Amino acid sequence: MSNQVDNDAMIVFVPSGKRGRFPRRTPILDAARSLGVDIDSVCGGRAICGRCQIEIAEGEFAKHGITSRASNVSAFSETEERYRIRRGLAEGRRLSCQARLKADVVIDVPASSQVHHQVVRKPNEDHDITIDPVVHAYFVEVSAPDLHEAHGDLQRLLQALDKEWALRNLSCELRVINELQAALAEGKRQVTVAVRNGERIIAIWPGFKEKMYGIAFDVGSTTIAAHLCDLTSGDVLASAGKMNPQIRYGEDLMSRVSYIMMNPGGETNLISAVHQAINELIIEVSEQAGVEPADILEVTIVGNPIMQHLVLGINPVELGTAPFALATDSSVNVPAADVDININPGGYVYALPCIAGHVGADAAGVLLAEAPYEHDEVSLIVDVGTNAEILLGNRERLLAASSPTGPAFEGAQISSGQRAAPGAIERVRIDRKTLEPKFKVIGCDLWSDDPDFEEQTRGSGVTGICGSGIIEVVAEMFLAGILDPDGKINSGGSDISPRVVADGRTFAYVLHEGQPDIRILQNDVRAIQLAKAALYAGARLLMEHFGVEKVDRIRLAGAFGAHIDVKYAMVLGLIPECDLQHVSSAGNAAGTGARIALLDRQSRDVVESRVRQVEKIETAVEEKFQEFFVAAMSIPSADGSAAPAKKKRRRRR
Amino acid sequence: MSNQVDNDAMIVFVPSGKRGRFPRRTPILDAARSLGVDIDSVCGGRAICGRCQIEIAEGEFAKHGITSRASNVSAFSETEERYRIRRGLAEGRRLSCQARLKADVVIDVPASSQVHHQVVRKPNEDHDITIDPVVHAYFVEVSAPDLHEAHGDLQRLLQALDKEWALRNLSCELRVINELQAALAEGKRQVTVAVRNGERIIAIWPGFKEKMYGIAFDVGSTTIAAHLCDLTSGDVLASAGKMNPQIRYGEDLMSRVSYIMMNPGGETNLISAVHQAINELIIEVSEQAGVEPADILEVTIVGNPIMQHLVLGINPVELGTAPFALATDSSVNVPAADVDININPGGYVYALPCIAGHVGADAAGVLLAEAPYEHDEVSLIVDVGTNAEILLGNRERLLAASSPTGPAFEGAQISSGQRAAPGAIERVRIDRKTLEPKFKVIGCDLWSDDPDFEEQTRGSGVTGICGSGIIEVVAEMFLAGILDPDGKINSGGSDISPRVVADGRTFAYVLHEGQPDIRILQNDVRAIQLAKAALYAGARLLMEHFGVEKVDRIRLAGAFGAHIDVKYAMVLGLIPECDLQHVSSAGNAAGTGARIALLDRQSRDVVESRVRQVEKIETAVEEKFQEFFVAAMSIPSADGSAAPAKKKRRRRR
Repeated sequence: MSNQVDNDAMIVFVPSGKRGRFPRRTPILDAARSLGVDIDSVCGGRAICGRCQIEIAEGEFAKHGITSRASNVSAFSETEERYRIRRGLAEGRRLSCQARLKADVVIDVPASSQVHHQVVRKPNEDHDITIDPVVHAYFVEVSAPDLHEAHGDLQRLLQALDKEWALRNLSCELRVINELQAALAEGKRQVTVAVRNGERIIAIWPGFKEKMYGIAFDVGSTTIAAHLCDLTSGDVLASAGKMNPQIRYGEDLMSRVSYIMMNPGGETNLISAVHQAINELIIEVSEQAGVEPADILEVTIVGNPIMQHLVLGINPVELGTAPFALATDSSVNVPAADVDININPGGYVYALPCIAGHVGADAAGVLLAEAPYEHDEVSLIVDVGTNAEILLGNRERLLAASSPTGPAFEGAQISSGQRAAPGAIERVRIDRKTLEPKFKVIGCDLWSDDPDFEEQTRGSGVTGICGSGIIEVVAEMFLAGILDPDGKINSGGSDISPRVVADGRTFAYVLHEGQPDIRILQNDVRAIQLAKAALYAGARLLMEHFGVEKVDRIRLAGAFGAHIDVKYAMVLGLIPECDLQHVSSAGNAAGTGARIALLDRQSRDVVESRVRQVEKIETAVEEKFQEFFVAAMSIPSADGSAAPAKKKRRRRR
Repeated sequence: MSNQVDNDAMIVFVPSGKRGRFPRRTPILDAARSLGVDIDSVCGGRAICGRCQIEIAEGEFAKHGITSRASNVSAFSETEERYRIRRGLAEGRRLSCQARLKADVVIDVPASSQVHHQVVRKPNEDHDITIDPVVHAYFVEVSAPDLHEAHGDLQRLLQALDKEWALRNLSCELRVINELQAALAEGKRQVTVAVRNGERIIAIWPGFKEKMYGIAFDVGSTTIAAHLCDLTSGDVLASAGKMNPQIRYGEDLMSRVSYIMMNPGGETNLISAVHQAINELIIEVSEQAGVEPADILEVTIVGNPIMQHLVLGINPVELGTAPFALATDSSVNVPAADVDININPGGYVYALPCIAGHVGADAAGVLLAEAPYEHDEVSLIVDVGTNAEILLGNRERLLAASSPTGPAFEGAQISSGQRAAPGAIERVRIDRKTLEPKFKVIGCDLWSDDPDFEEQTRGSGVTGICGSGIIEVVAEMFLAGILDPDGKINSGGSDISPRVVADGRTFAYVLHEGQPDIRILQNDVRAIQLAKAALYAGARLLMEHFGVEKVDRIRLAGAFGAHIDVKYAMVLGLIPECDLQHVSSAGNAAGTGARIALLDRQSRDVVESRVRQVEKIETAVEEKFQEFFVAAMSIPSADGSAAPAKKKRRRRR
């Protein structure tokens, strides 16, 4: 045991495997730093922040020739005990800034103590998120001013940040300079500063301050969603959503832009409406999580181009008419105060880049969340809202387009359509012989032919049909022979069942009799045909440009993707041919992209460079799009007259 | 004449002497650019801005082997004629973007066409100012958006700035992004942008915009002065001054800081008072010069540390008590809007750095204007206000201190003292035998013993005595033997002249009998003794630190320096021994420093690095200062007990 007698001892860190010999009594944190082991610290080794926790692995480590024991590290100190009483410290955990090396030891660095740890996303998501936020807190002790040494207090603070944290060439917000001397006095020369991007001091607090938060916003035309995250752990602490109050200026995007065109200066109404909703959400998620809005330092935004412009206070009127020119397609970093977003006055907003005039930062968020550029396989990613935003690509190449599906998939422009809400029909089955339907409504797990169905839906009733329900009923009507492949409700059904009824010169299908009756009219089928043809044609157009006949995987993003049954999407011909097992929901991928950009500063470089790489296909000027569109009106979709060789008509079961 | 037949021709630019051969029909401007000849242009060769004017030198240039003629350049074009009619073009001048090379030629680039030309300062100032402002205008034509090419308009603008002006990696204010599309529409895709520091687009105008302005502010405790400059020519177009309205919160700096200490939050009153005065001056100088405040893009500020803090919105309360800690001693660049200064909303404020808690950005301005670091000789530079700020040094070394002279030199705390204004006595002579005085008052060129004096001063009367008058009267009283070397008004004078009268237990000198009587009391002499001792001791202390017994030159800055007769300053012992011919007024050097920083971006680096180099001497903690101070109470000043060898008492004529 020669290592018991000489002056150094071996220390091995796991999981990194980094190792080295250090003099006994070296603090474990110092050893870790000199080996480049990733252990976090905010307080700089003062046993305040508790970020540097480690565990001592016990046992024989033959690989390293070490027998590691807890006693090979200095005993639990009074400082650690004070920390344990004050803030809690799990059994077996030590503060690495306090525990010192006594003999050879193996140190286990838990993921939560690493600066750049990963958090696991939800099961339907592919990647973990690296936690490396753009804002980081640093605790420092600032030397006292001295008549013999005429430096300013800012220069003393910068010296301390250089010495303790090796931070150089920092700039500083004027507001922080203004708050500095009071903070130094209150904190007895100890302060915590928030540094953004390793470049700029944006906030200051007296004494030790640990927790800082951020919010990822997904600003849709209809709803705005906010996710409050702990910037250190990456945890989502609260989520909330609300209607976009701009709806009072127009249901859809184009009517809002028309409002601005008709009322010059009216953009300020839309801008302040969206800012007000964002600020209300900030208060709501802060209250949910028990957090002060002043402790929120960063906000990320994804939205379609018009929303992205309005959140940034930019008049989107040019996006209302061809050539749909964006004011900027780059990401924007801007002080939150400049766009009237009420977080810490030093906080910033990062707005993800837009891809094109019709393909927004929401699509950029989807791109970041889905990362098709990490795969050799060709992914088709579809995010359906009022427009469908479509991404296609792999490691080699990325394409994007927006397809004018209209709002039929969201239940709008459908006679009995409604938004997804309790009482809305979301699942439909039609008996192939009797043409008798059964259905499920949101808020009830039973099918409508269950004896308890009426009892259980008494509260909500059966009020309409939502997006996923419409797709299923049209697909089932086709499968049951009620619809012809060209989408016509054929009169023959009325011979079989009273559910098929004449409706003027056309026929309709009675899905539910009640208050109200829910009928699927010929025009409803036509609206779905138009929408799905647009979606399908957009996807086919990108495939044509990419030069593939079949995609390897399809991801359906957004609420639509989460609720539709992919089997029916395929029956109807919403999406091109693909192995059903490789078709899945991507969840709220745009919001996930905003969250990744919030938590991982590197991801911003990734999305910015990937967006620049995307080839933008403008459906409106592509003749092929029209061909694909016309062909895709049939059920299921036909491929259009792309090229003689591709002209075969794929019909699926 | 081989050069008449081959395809190239020789072009020589003077005064640079740069030369090269270019194909015939090359625009002169293009040839200049490829040779690196400094010719300005805002419009990028579109014959709009007229900045690129040149003249064709005629004659034989043996040195270059050229016979240059006006006809060796293409004929005056229609484009130039249109420019001439619209904006004027002097005889012999050509637009180098239009004139093309035909044969060998010598081109004279006038100073006004150079980007980095120099403007000559006033006669009492040493250096010319290089014109190289931090904000520059660029005119560009931005490509139209196109459905096939999904870039944002900002990206198109950046492309144009890169292509036409080789500007890369520019960032852009969000407000400019917001204004961009409207400006492009109004300017038919032609816009002018203002780029700050070659880094950031801060303003945009539709079409061609040439003139941009800046204001240099000298913010004193008593008065605030503004100088509006053309950022291109460097000309001062208008100047104005006004009282600092903070005076209502306290006459001197310390009483204003006391106000804040007694009224927490009261700093906002002082801050808004100074901002209001600055904004009123902006309007005043703009109206004088016929300029829109929106065309002012940059403001520079010099002031003492407390003023500098208040202009930046920083509570200066720490500067009120030892250790007089500055919030920051660095220069500050901040959007003007952030400090409520109403210029172009994209404009910036550059506040010069402070040297120490008592030696402000006004001293930094003096340092920049006087540039003692460019000389081998040792300069002593004194700027007298309520405190005297003293700089000493040369190429090797720079020292600075502030000395607590009090306001006696400004006429305050003197029984008959007043500010410099019509009616104030500013010059005094006392007959050595009769002790009879004569004097001059501000606003009248006659001595008081002139028969027309009373007539000519009827308007103002004789109202008091100002700073320069006090110094002269005390010095004259000493030279006439009324004062002892220790400053006592000796009773013997009363035997010679009724002008010397008893005043309680001491005596007084009656300078003027009238409404009011103007008497020099013993306490007035004491106040001047204290002030001059403080000034002299501060200078001596720096000389002691520097290790010199005598300085090579003395420069007296500010209003005080402009008005006092240096001979009397020397008699009284305000300043150390120096050849009288090397003692001179530096004019308003602080304001000149602000103007240099406004017009020459490089000067900002200079002042920042020189300020860091300055050794700050704190008079309050130097025992030597007390010794020098006590010794300097006598008239003239004695050198104090610095070191035995230095103890000799210098007495001057």
